Amino acid sequence: MNKGALALLVHGGTENWSPQRWKSRFDAVCEGRPVLLLPDASFDPAEVHYAAVWKPHPGELAAFPNLRVIFNLGAGVDALMADRSLPNVPLVRVAVTDLTARMTEYVVLHVLMHHRQEPYLRESQRAKRWAPKSQWAAGAVTVGIMGLGTLGADAADVLKRLGFRVAGWSRNPKTVDGIECFHGEQQFEAFLQRTDILVCLLPLTPETRHILNRPMFEKLNRKSPLGAPVLINAGRGGLQNEADILQCLDDGTLGGASLDVYATEPLPVDSPFWAHPRVVLTPHNAADTDPDEISKYVAHQIERFEAGGALENVVDRNRGY
Amino acid sequence: MNKGALALLVHGGTENWSPQRWKSRFDAVCEGRPVLLLPDASFDPAEVHYAAVWKPHPGELAAFPNLRVIFNLGAGVDALMADRSLPNVPLVRVAVTDLTARMTEYVVLHVLMHHRQEPYLRESQRAKRWAPKSQWAAGAVTVGIMGLGTLGADAADVLKRLGFRVAGWSRNPKTVDGIECFHGEQQFEAFLQRTDILVCLLPLTPETRHILNRPMFEKLNRKSPLGAPVLINAGRGGLQNEADILQCLDDGTLGGASLDVYATEPLPVDSPFWAHPRVVLTPHNAADTDPDEISKYVAHQIERFEAGGALENVVDRNRGY
Repeated sequence: MNKGALALLVHGGTENWSPQRWKSRFDAVCEGRPVLLLPDASFDPAEVHYAAVWKPHPGELAAFPNLRVIFNLGAGVDALMADRSLPNVPLVRVAVTDLTARMTEYVVLHVLMHHRQEPYLRESQRAKRWAPKSQWAAGAVTVGIMGLGTLGADAADVLKRLGFRVAGWSRNPKTVDGIECFHGEQQFEAFLQRTDILVCLLPLTPETRHILNRPMFEKLNRKSPLGAPVLINAGRGGLQNEADILQCLDDGTLGGASLDVYATEPLPVDSPFWAHPRVVLTPHNAADTDPDEISKYVAHQIERFEAGGALENVVDRNRGY
Repeated sequence: MNKGALALLVHGGTENWSPQRWKSRFDAVCEGRPVLLLPDASFDPAEVHYAAVWKPHPGELAAFPNLRVIFNLGAGVDALMADRSLPNVPLVRVAVTDLTARMTEYVVLHVLMHHRQEPYLRESQRAKRWAPKSQWAAGAVTVGIMGLGTLGADAADVLKRLGFRVAGWSRNPKTVDGIECFHGEQQFEAFLQRTDILVCLLPLTPETRHILNRPMFEKLNRKSPLGAPVLINAGRGGLQNEADILQCLDDGTLGGASLDVYATEPLPVDSPFWAHPRVVLTPHNAADTDPDEISKYVAHQIERFEAGGALENVVDRNRGY
């Protein structure tokens, strides 16, 4: 065997993300390299140098004694970081243009849905009621984005182009052209106070768990042109206190919410989110990236790594993302 | 009276567009000029030099013998052009940034709703069903825009930024950066054949009446990644053959439609559009512009006209827009 094998550990996902589909994509781009779809009894775990994973079971990666790099097939690595037996090798997360573009689509769509009163207009259609309401201009609305990495900065750019005022908040200081940037705990309240539509794209870490909670919703713009501020969470379910969201929607602290992620996924059928009239719910598909793009990205990184180059988008294990 | 009076003829509209609201806005920006809200028995019609109108009744404008300019408070002048007694003075339509921005919001929102399978996702939510489907990338979808004036070009620009392929069709040749431009009857079919999501922003003229009909829907991309092509009409109701749209939605020639305008408005309660599962319906509010912006625009044009300058956005009565 000339090249170290790549093992695929893929669990869950849509038909587009089936393990067989991943294998055919990796076979196409990993010339001369064995691609193993686990479980597979016909190979020696010591031959595996790389693993490309999607929701691997805890402990599963510890089976490979000669592992050199782990590639996560999505952007969020919180589940992997929780695996205490995770081999101490570089962990790379996906950062491809396709993923960024899809997340921007989701953010722009859901910001516009709340801005343009879609829940009200659909309700009017169901009631066969012709009842246009006054519509505020985009320039009267501030979208506040939590997380100003590749995803947050790209969504901010399109929202700005549409005329929204855009504010951003991140852990460390950042500068994004045309966007009012805030950072750290000290500037969190100032960021929240001007925010009418809050978009959360943060990674899930011990520091950000349940950051979306009642005390923070209460700090959002209380004089919003929308009536009450809106929450959009396309980060991770663990970022949100779900009981707080429901109570805040019901007492008017929040005017609406778009949720793509949940504490438990798939969302249990008895969750009150399903039938809530002010919740726009999607099944964690904000940025389902094309396997073609991701497999090419991984194959390219492996080639560069074997040629002595540096890996890109390596997770900082201290930060957790 | 130093300055010629401005008469307001405003019928219909939302609370934001009430005649009183218009009068207060024009009073604020027309310094030293009488602003008359019709009907008003206390003035001499001969004193009226300017009229700012929204859905005036046929014949209503013929009452002013010294009229110099008519300002239409919206972008579409088809209803005015149908008034055979319309005084033969310059007719100016609104072209303000605010109107353009709002139309772009509408177009981007509705393109994204169909692209991101919103009707399917809302149905899944109502059924409490967690069932993500594969999602095509924006680069696999062509949005075809009919009408490449200020509105069409601006919407095209944002759609391009989101990664869509964008084609445009107009009566006369146009060039828009990054957009495949078609024009005239000869290139109409080539434009339609590549279009997955058709956006209609055409003015209503005798030539464009019922241009949105079955033979043209049948020419749209039959191999669309969306399954079947989608229609978005934010121009005028007179552009669409409504029986054809319904039949094409039911036999699969169209996969969905977003309609903001109708043959009869308000849309009659017995219209099948209201309850159609593949119709996303809005009450002609795609681009309800801020009266503040429009009144400033009209006042500014009058000042320049009285100082000997040219009027902008004057309707070509032969073209009809």
